[in-house]
Amino acid sequence: MTTASNKLPKYFNISREIIAMIQRGEMLPGTAVPSENEIIDKYEVSNTTARKALHDLERAGWVTRIKGKGTFVRNNTVERSVNRIFGFTKNMVEAGRKPSTRLIGFHLRDEDHSRTINHRECTLKGPYCEIERIRYADGVPMMKETRYISLQFCPDIHRKNLEHSLFEIYEKSYSIRMIEFDQMLSTVLLEGDWLKVFKLDKPVPAFRVEGVTFCGKGLILELEDAYYRGDMYRFSAKATA
Amino acid sequence: MTTASNKLPKYFNISREIIAMIQRGEMLPGTAVPSENEIIDKYEVSNTTARKALHDLERAGWVTRIKGKGTFVRNNTVERSVNRIFGFTKNMVEAGRKPSTRLIGFHLRDEDHSRTINHRECTLKGPYCEIERIRYADGVPMMKETRYISLQFCPDIHRKNLEHSLFEIYEKSYSIRMIEFDQMLSTVLLEGDWLKVFKLDKPVPAFRVEGVTFCGKGLILELEDAYYRGDMYRFSAKATA
Repeated sequence: MTTASNKLPKYFNISREIIAMIQRGEMLPGTAVPSENEIIDKYEVSNTTARKALHDLERAGWVTRIKGKGTFVRNNTVERSVNRIFGFTKNMVEAGRKPSTRLIGFHLRDEDHSRTINHRECTLKGPYCEIERIRYADGVPMMKETRYISLQFCPDIHRKNLEHSLFEIYEKSYSIRMIEFDQMLSTVLLEGDWLKVFKLDKPVPAFRVEGVTFCGKGLILELEDAYYRGDMYRFSAKATA
Repeated sequence: MTTASNKLPKYFNISREIIAMIQRGEMLPGTAVPSENEIIDKYEVSNTTARKALHDLERAGWVTRIKGKGTFVRNNTVERSVNRIFGFTKNMVEAGRKPSTRLIGFHLRDEDHSRTINHRECTLKGPYCEIERIRYADGVPMMKETRYISLQFCPDIHRKNLEHSLFEIYEKSYSIRMIEFDQMLSTVLLEGDWLKVFKLDKPVPAFRVEGVTFCGKGLILELEDAYYRGDMYRFSAKATA
């Protein structure tokens, strides 16, 4: 443990160390994390500090405490279906997780924005609103997205609360019906500056999802470019004959 | 370049060095690789060696030679749709690539084999045939798969040529109609022993695809566990309302 002269609270250093072990796969989902007494012995701290460390892990969604049994590593992997048109918020609620969103960038642009998705050239006509957001489940950063939203279909979207579910805003504020959602998945390694965004200690592979959402035949509502942590996500797909 | 006292032919060392640069993303698809004359100057080799190096790159599918224009890095990324039931062979043929397969492992097993795919517990009843194969496009290793094939539906599949398309064998030799193909995609980093399998110089992210193929309601024809190179593949998906 970094017992260096940093000024962070002791409990916080302990919980960070345990999180790092979970992230490195040294503690698998379902296994017990150290108990209060084990933390007291190992780190030579008070029972208050040990208890705070376990609370911190729980608050951040890494562990579940089961009364009388102990504290266990949660399976943090979320499944996302590519066969459905649905957003992050709904996905997390269905997975029993608490979603939240942080808006970290915002631009209004007049030009068009083009992207080739599944061999199809998709052009979003300007003006559009470009937003950059980090999305969390139980406080853990899961995904970072850049979305390019048509101001033709959502004229004053930049005046809405952009930390809310955009799919809900489309449906409720603009009565838009999304009819098709095409996605192109590739893999990238999150390293360098990405580590800070996702609070990671070491590089992890990720899914990059470039997508286009149509709200009518040939009508592009939005384009997106999102990075989903590979250690937190699985994508499911079903093909039928 | 490794001009060490290795006994590999000179042209081979040159082509390996150029391949490594392409893999590192230092030469992007569409850009020119060094010409015959540039290779002669840079590596101080004969024109025969330079020509052989370029032929080797072309043979391995890394570059395309355009008469009178030069030699260019190919876009090696293949798109794979998760909305269709179709195999590697057909995918490659549609992409204009030459598929080939190497069988590297084979077992007959009597027990059942279970795997959870998209929240569904899938059990392939024994006996089954387990095969491990590497699959190539234009000689480049693209994917490694382990497949678990029901001997109930394909009683003597182990006597077929297992370097052929299994989907064709299912359809033509056993008149099997595949009705559903469920896939679960995760990401992994190919490193360590994986580098040799895929002839890589450095770790690359990959898609892991665990799948189950049904040939009737609740009837499992096969399970699979495959690793698709992330630098060679994109997965496409389409969802409609």
